[in-house]
Amino acid sequence: MKIVPPYLLFIGDASDKLSIKMALSAAKWRPELCIGEYSVSGCSVTTGIEQMNIKQASDKGAKSFVLGFANSGGSLDKKWFPYIIEAMEAGMDIVSGLHEKLCSFPKLVIKAEQTQQKLLDIRHPQEGFVTGTGLKRKGKRLLTVGTDCSVGKMYTSLCIEQSMKALNFDVDFRATGQCGILIAGNGVAIDCVISDFISGATESLSPNNHAEHWDVIEGQGSLSHPAFAGVSLGLLHGSQPDALVVCHDLHRNHMRGLPKSQFPSIETTIALNLQAAKLTNPNVKVVGIAVNTSSVSVDEGQEICAAFSKQFTLPCVDPVRDGADSIVKTLL
Amino acid sequence: MKIVPPYLLFIGDASDKLSIKMALSAAKWRPELCIGEYSVSGCSVTTGIEQMNIKQASDKGAKSFVLGFANSGGSLDKKWFPYIIEAMEAGMDIVSGLHEKLCSFPKLVIKAEQTQQKLLDIRHPQEGFVTGTGLKRKGKRLLTVGTDCSVGKMYTSLCIEQSMKALNFDVDFRATGQCGILIAGNGVAIDCVISDFISGATESLSPNNHAEHWDVIEGQGSLSHPAFAGVSLGLLHGSQPDALVVCHDLHRNHMRGLPKSQFPSIETTIALNLQAAKLTNPNVKVVGIAVNTSSVSVDEGQEICAAFSKQFTLPCVDPVRDGADSIVKTLL
Repeated sequence: MKIVPPYLLFIGDASDKLSIKMALSAAKWRPELCIGEYSVSGCSVTTGIEQMNIKQASDKGAKSFVLGFANSGGSLDKKWFPYIIEAMEAGMDIVSGLHEKLCSFPKLVIKAEQTQQKLLDIRHPQEGFVTGTGLKRKGKRLLTVGTDCSVGKMYTSLCIEQSMKALNFDVDFRATGQCGILIAGNGVAIDCVISDFISGATESLSPNNHAEHWDVIEGQGSLSHPAFAGVSLGLLHGSQPDALVVCHDLHRNHMRGLPKSQFPSIETTIALNLQAAKLTNPNVKVVGIAVNTSSVSVDEGQEICAAFSKQFTLPCVDPVRDGADSIVKTLL
Repeated sequence: MKIVPPYLLFIGDASDKLSIKMALSAAKWRPELCIGEYSVSGCSVTTGIEQMNIKQASDKGAKSFVLGFANSGGSLDKKWFPYIIEAMEAGMDIVSGLHEKLCSFPKLVIKAEQTQQKLLDIRHPQEGFVTGTGLKRKGKRLLTVGTDCSVGKMYTSLCIEQSMKALNFDVDFRATGQCGILIAGNGVAIDCVISDFISGATESLSPNNHAEHWDVIEGQGSLSHPAFAGVSLGLLHGSQPDALVVCHDLHRNHMRGLPKSQFPSIETTIALNLQAAKLTNPNVKVVGIAVNTSSVSVDEGQEICAAFSKQFTLPCVDPVRDGADSIVKTLL
């Protein structure tokens, strides 16, 4: 599955920033891949990039029409079919991170066949995976892990990639969720893989490489989340990380979506991840802590990070506010 | 997915006992559900139950035609299509534990439609699962866990169920693999579930029950297996076991299928499973050890079990040779 840039980000009539996560992710992290944004009457949000319609985007060379919105059920509203069809007729592939597959609608499949465009359901892995081997691969790997789901593992991974590039590392970001896949142009939505293949799919996502190369692998879930720990563990084993970065969000009182489920400490999160990671890489180390401090002031955020840094004798930053250089420098 | 007894076990022209695992499992554990075995010219193995053809089985009331064989690739040889079609015409559903789906062959789908029989691909869950909640459910649960894959978790679970029934427990065996599903008549092949739903599917497999009821849940994989630990962890969290039984096979030197992967001790296996299980049930206990001693003499096996029992202060048996009473009695 390869997403061809440049992208036209379609956000329909969205009125909620949370619902256009796909479009926002691409616009923030890969503005150079995004040729424009297309919204229709009723839309009250924006990614901030240039507005244009399908014809204008096509004239500028757009190759992929990205459904940048989501709804809670992950279904695809049929009212968008005319736009999707117009985009295919204008020479674009269609990219969706929705749960409901583009490929499940014969009308779209027929049009894709006629126009020779692709329907890319990026949440739904197409590859035939094999089971994991645990065999050591060449090259180096960093994995972001978390106290919980949605604490900033993707953002942290991308900040680390950015910092590594600035410091002349040879690095690839390896995406494991739909937003990450749109940003990277490829990847595997690991929570949509058949459970037998979690580790194996991760191994194939981050293959053998030369000795000095780094893969920065986007983590998922948390070893302490009752619903998703299996995914996190398979991803951890398949990644064989040399370096772990622990991600955390301030002011959570319970696991995401589960009001009765206790939140683990950073200390517990470090211990659990190191213990499990040693199965496939005995030399694994935690190299930093990344805290989403957006719920407090910049000053207060920095104080909190300084305190964690002292407590754990590790660099600790809010990577979005402060950058990830202090973590990346430990890898030099 | 409900498999209707009685079963006709079809083993084709199999010449290897390992290749008829499905048929052997049903014949051993649910002989009362198996009306007969059907093999064709060239077959050199048997489950030991009465031989009959499709017509004879149908006359005796057979309701399901079970493909009791497997090949290494899990594919379905088209040479069996005439037998499958004859069985549907004789009023039987078709049950397959193969990787390749019955439903993927239009010829079989059309015949199933014509005859109003079902094609049951029991490795492939049909249900729409939800993600796990970690919420405590009523009733009691025992889960078998292992030092490795294929160390006897299903056999141990079934021995425990048998012993519990004899001791008047109210108990259900909950199947998580294709052989177990054939034995139980229902269940979920947990390694074929989308990874997001491992815990959620397990929760639905073992729902709320009355306080004194026991579910004996068939374990899968091992927390120490680099390929399958994610499945094992999701299954453990979703099971919320009150009681764990650790299963082990003598004389393994490495993890199944992975010659370079180290084998964990029983001690490590107990520690890892208790630690992880506490996330969804803080009161979890290990109640026994089950050892497959089939590679040594009965006397030597009993000596080994006695030594483990002393070392871990837990009942330790080969459940197939000795029964599981000593483990079950700790639950009284």
